[in-house]
Amino acid sequence: MKSQQNGAGATPTTENPDRSDRLARLPLRDELRGQEPYGAPQLTVRAMLNVNETTYDVPADVVDAITTEVRHAAQSLNRYPDREFTRLREKLADYLGHGLSAENIWAANGSNEIMQHILQAFAGPGRSVLAFPPTYSMYPLYARGTYSEYIPGTRGEDFTQSAADVARQIREHRPHVVILCSPNNPTGTALGLDVVEAAYAAALEGDTMVVVDEAYGEFRQNGTPSALELLAGRERLIVSRTMSKAFALAGGRLGYLAAAEEVTDALRLVRLPYHLSAVTQATAEAALDHSATLMANVERIKSQRDRIVETLSSYGLTPAPSDANFVFFGGLSDEKAAWQHLLDDGILIRDVGIPGHLRVTAGTEEETTAFLESLRRHLGR
Amino acid sequence: MKSQQNGAGATPTTENPDRSDRLARLPLRDELRGQEPYGAPQLTVRAMLNVNETTYDVPADVVDAITTEVRHAAQSLNRYPDREFTRLREKLADYLGHGLSAENIWAANGSNEIMQHILQAFAGPGRSVLAFPPTYSMYPLYARGTYSEYIPGTRGEDFTQSAADVARQIREHRPHVVILCSPNNPTGTALGLDVVEAAYAAALEGDTMVVVDEAYGEFRQNGTPSALELLAGRERLIVSRTMSKAFALAGGRLGYLAAAEEVTDALRLVRLPYHLSAVTQATAEAALDHSATLMANVERIKSQRDRIVETLSSYGLTPAPSDANFVFFGGLSDEKAAWQHLLDDGILIRDVGIPGHLRVTAGTEEETTAFLESLRRHLGR
Repeated sequence: MKSQQNGAGATPTTENPDRSDRLARLPLRDELRGQEPYGAPQLTVRAMLNVNETTYDVPADVVDAITTEVRHAAQSLNRYPDREFTRLREKLADYLGHGLSAENIWAANGSNEIMQHILQAFAGPGRSVLAFPPTYSMYPLYARGTYSEYIPGTRGEDFTQSAADVARQIREHRPHVVILCSPNNPTGTALGLDVVEAAYAAALEGDTMVVVDEAYGEFRQNGTPSALELLAGRERLIVSRTMSKAFALAGGRLGYLAAAEEVTDALRLVRLPYHLSAVTQATAEAALDHSATLMANVERIKSQRDRIVETLSSYGLTPAPSDANFVFFGGLSDEKAAWQHLLDDGILIRDVGIPGHLRVTAGTEEETTAFLESLRRHLGR
Repeated sequence: MKSQQNGAGATPTTENPDRSDRLARLPLRDELRGQEPYGAPQLTVRAMLNVNETTYDVPADVVDAITTEVRHAAQSLNRYPDREFTRLREKLADYLGHGLSAENIWAANGSNEIMQHILQAFAGPGRSVLAFPPTYSMYPLYARGTYSEYIPGTRGEDFTQSAADVARQIREHRPHVVILCSPNNPTGTALGLDVVEAAYAAALEGDTMVVVDEAYGEFRQNGTPSALELLAGRERLIVSRTMSKAFALAGGRLGYLAAAEEVTDALRLVRLPYHLSAVTQATAEAALDHSATLMANVERIKSQRDRIVETLSSYGLTPAPSDANFVFFGGLSDEKAAWQHLLDDGILIRDVGIPGHLRVTAGTEEETTAFLESLRRHLGR
């Protein structure tokens, strides 16, 4: 496990009242006043299982390939990068399959920027975005950053979503963008394609684009389909992915999406030119050239994920079925005490703010054992 | 000179009416309808002098340093990057001097994203941005991308700006952000500090932030001061810079700015978390470690720039005084014919849309000779 910079300096305004006062005297936009920067704690402990990174080291042959590609790119860094990142789009299309070509692919600096581009083109001032909490906590911030209205929809009591209920909410709110997170973060469960199909049918009745966020798509249970299967003939459907998780490339910041060609044309109108550096393109291409190596780790992580679900059930807790590289579990009498007990043992997991529940990333076998044993001791099992 | 991908596929909608029709059927925002993506032609010719890149190859020791730093960073790419890019900010502060510390520095993916962050925090819907055309052609696009009103101010007939006139326009329009481009692109001339001081005084009377865009700051004539000298005690002043030009790092996409600490706190509220990849941070840090090597090329470029101004004057043309790595010149009877003649000779320069004028990047001695000789032949001198 490698160390990481501590983000203690990340929110100076909270630590320095004078600086906070000085910020308040600037002509900042009203909706930003009193806000704090987004970000999970960046602590360095024995097992960092809080932000769903791949905890395996980057394989040596991938490090070598990235180094070789970046050395090549570095020789031309005096020139602007390929604004169309054509070779990267080709490689992403090849990786996804499903008959996709480079013209169906868009990429950006992390799925954060992917979502920003989508909302800049299809949401924005006077338009709205519908998502279904508890879901990825960045969605409302993408809306705020693009001055779009954020509409928090609802889920079933067990956090699942039915086709009929999702379609009903789209018809009720008529959003300009609806985001379906599958597998959902933080709950981990993927949607059936019937939900996506129903959402799409309701979307066509208005001016709605449908985004299926499959950031954790590679970790799906065998037999769980991807919304990529539905793309053909559905020009309002966007499936977003990231290289941060399955490709162990969180530090490389490469998000991407697949959609109809005209959707990528729309995003070309809002992207800042040369948004993807030559170094980012080279790094992502090198990782894509080694996808087989990286997907072997995905299988290892899935087996630890299944072990966590099974073991937590045996503890009397209630883990949600997971198609992701993390497990969301309930049944805790005091989730904050459990979180602190784990941290005292050097294991950092995520309190997502839902009473009785926590979320843990599936790491290596050793990290998983440390987590399960520490929690077992806390529960007195 | 190295080859570059041809961007012929950059605007598929212009080449494919069917695809354009399909784009029009998407629920795109109204202001984007019928627009084309921004971007200069990416052609591969003998002398590419159209986008103010450094045309010298990246020095071998800089390529080596980037490779070494990226290899190190690649080993931890499974983890999210340092969200605060603290070491990079320290190196940028050291480079700029003027008593600045890391807390005064912000960085992003190119100065494009720097300007987007500034407008997201201080402009946006219901607010306005004032700039002074002819100036950098991206400014109205930053405004559009953040749904800010763009106000085009005016310049003197010789494209210069006086302190009194700039202050008057700020008082008249009461913009939320005013952008002073110094040296100005495309005209190449830097502003006196009296203009910045007058703009700042007028800005303080309203809710205005003052941005001095010094993208070409390192190419200033000896004796031309930087607005960095004015930062102390002026919390509404922002000086933006880029590593694209003097650091020969256009492909690395690293823009940055210096300002009061509370300004960087404001930008932290609008940035997408982890916006700067670990690879981008490593690349920029490596280049900063070799700033002395890179600044030696800046001196070579400045001497070619001065040679261009002198020679064009001897041709009877009217080059503007240049503090940049490019020269803006008038006196052409048919600028489009001159541009085409140069391109036929394998020399790509920039038609910035001002009758009788063109803009050329100062390249190597060889490229400068090729440009000057080709233009001399065209003019029949």
